[in-house]
Amino acid sequence: MKLCERMVIAGVGLIGGSLGLAVRERGLAGEVVGYGRSEENLRTALERGAIDRYERTPEAARDADLVVLAVPVRSTRAVAEPLLAVAAKDALVIDAGSVKGEVVRIMEEITRAPQTFVGCHPIAGTELAGAANALRDLYQNQLCLITPTTRTDASALARARAVWEAVGMRVETISPEEHDRLLAMVSHLPHVAAYALIRTIEGQSVGARDPIAYSGGGLRDTTRIAASPGEMWRDIFLGNKGEVLRTIDEFVATLARLRSEIASEDVAALDADLDRARRARQRLKERRT
Amino acid sequence: MKLCERMVIAGVGLIGGSLGLAVRERGLAGEVVGYGRSEENLRTALERGAIDRYERTPEAARDADLVVLAVPVRSTRAVAEPLLAVAAKDALVIDAGSVKGEVVRIMEEITRAPQTFVGCHPIAGTELAGAANALRDLYQNQLCLITPTTRTDASALARARAVWEAVGMRVETISPEEHDRLLAMVSHLPHVAAYALIRTIEGQSVGARDPIAYSGGGLRDTTRIAASPGEMWRDIFLGNKGEVLRTIDEFVATLARLRSEIASEDVAALDADLDRARRARQRLKERRT
Repeated sequence: MKLCERMVIAGVGLIGGSLGLAVRERGLAGEVVGYGRSEENLRTALERGAIDRYERTPEAARDADLVVLAVPVRSTRAVAEPLLAVAAKDALVIDAGSVKGEVVRIMEEITRAPQTFVGCHPIAGTELAGAANALRDLYQNQLCLITPTTRTDASALARARAVWEAVGMRVETISPEEHDRLLAMVSHLPHVAAYALIRTIEGQSVGARDPIAYSGGGLRDTTRIAASPGEMWRDIFLGNKGEVLRTIDEFVATLARLRSEIASEDVAALDADLDRARRARQRLKERRT
Repeated sequence: MKLCERMVIAGVGLIGGSLGLAVRERGLAGEVVGYGRSEENLRTALERGAIDRYERTPEAARDADLVVLAVPVRSTRAVAEPLLAVAAKDALVIDAGSVKGEVVRIMEEITRAPQTFVGCHPIAGTELAGAANALRDLYQNQLCLITPTTRTDASALARARAVWEAVGMRVETISPEEHDRLLAMVSHLPHVAAYALIRTIEGQSVGARDPIAYSGGGLRDTTRIAASPGEMWRDIFLGNKGEVLRTIDEFVATLARLRSEIASEDVAALDADLDRARRARQRLKERRT
């Protein structure tokens, strides 16, 4: 099954590159064209088989019937506008960003029918960046959230769904606003926490000792995602500002409660809190594995 | 090389059980006696070869020349007193807890020469509890911090060091106070953060959706250690209260700074913060693998 004749992937990093690998492996596109800023990264993508060819100008999207935006979310408008100007008149335009409200609003503003935009968020990834770290099976058995609005027509929605299902994903639709609230909780807040955790510790010393040299598996795992690209995450935090600030406030309130239970040595309350956390974590483990 | 004739391990969980497995495998003790509350766990330890036999009364320590305390830190005094009363007159007493100041103070108070206490913290472990999860190679190539004081004599320190080195650990000495400051940063704070993170999210819903069902690798890793036993961690938070509260305050201050950078869309400051976090995380990765 062919999804399209010409797919252009703007941003051939971990997300875009992994999509290219999966699409080319399955023969889902006539050709896959890479578009990006870094020639070195585009060359890596080409060598790894994630794209058939690349261009560093918007001409990359000439006559493309499928445009995939896999760039930091706040670059969406600037990257998309020149691509849409040369893409096929009825191109389907999708993205892969972790913020939907702002991105969908901007893209619906700049997309002219019969070109159609459908907001997508394949929930997959690692802390590693670039085409060098792309994985052909990154999307296999993972969940993709698609965020149609009243302006999304049924056939565009069906085409967008088909793209992600073709690379092995389960697809679920949700409103952009609910998406952003959900993702703030399960992804954006954990990233803020991981960045804050390592920033609290690094640079401190105990006697002449660097604390980081004394860490074990706990710090390693809680801060793994703090190795994620800063530019990408800065855009997510700003692009989903309202929900991110709200979840930070909720997190700080929880920390304040635990702090108070420790300070007052309220064993019963502390035990209840830790026990409930442990059971929730158990539930997460059962759900996701 | 024999470390002792009779080793009693009080608390044959992940930490005590793994020590028993490593000691018995290497023939380091004449016999290893398990002592604990749960007969089921003691039986598991026996079946898995972590101990030679067990007793559920303090008689377990009768004539033992090496007493290992691997119980929640705030149980140390209550567990240790009856054991020291029947152990060999010159027994070496060590612990394995993640808090040293309070434990060392209590143990030096209740230990009568020639019995000697030496505070130890093998930095190893997982979120899993009990003898069923003990690992024969848990300590291999890991770091053990030993916290002698002015009351610790050189031969007791050498004996304590020999125990952990015999099961494959690197040993470093540090004051109890510095230990507690270091561990608050690299272990106790990450646990508070993980517990708080999952508690902030669980129980919430978005529409009819349970956020936990929408999580990916980020939430999974940042909250792994929130599956750790609550009783053990409640004791650590309370036993190291001063340092734990201090690091929570430092963490909340970092969160407040990031929050303010996001709220005011201060891209330069946010980028600098995330970049510094990312480089510190990179450093951690290089150090520990």
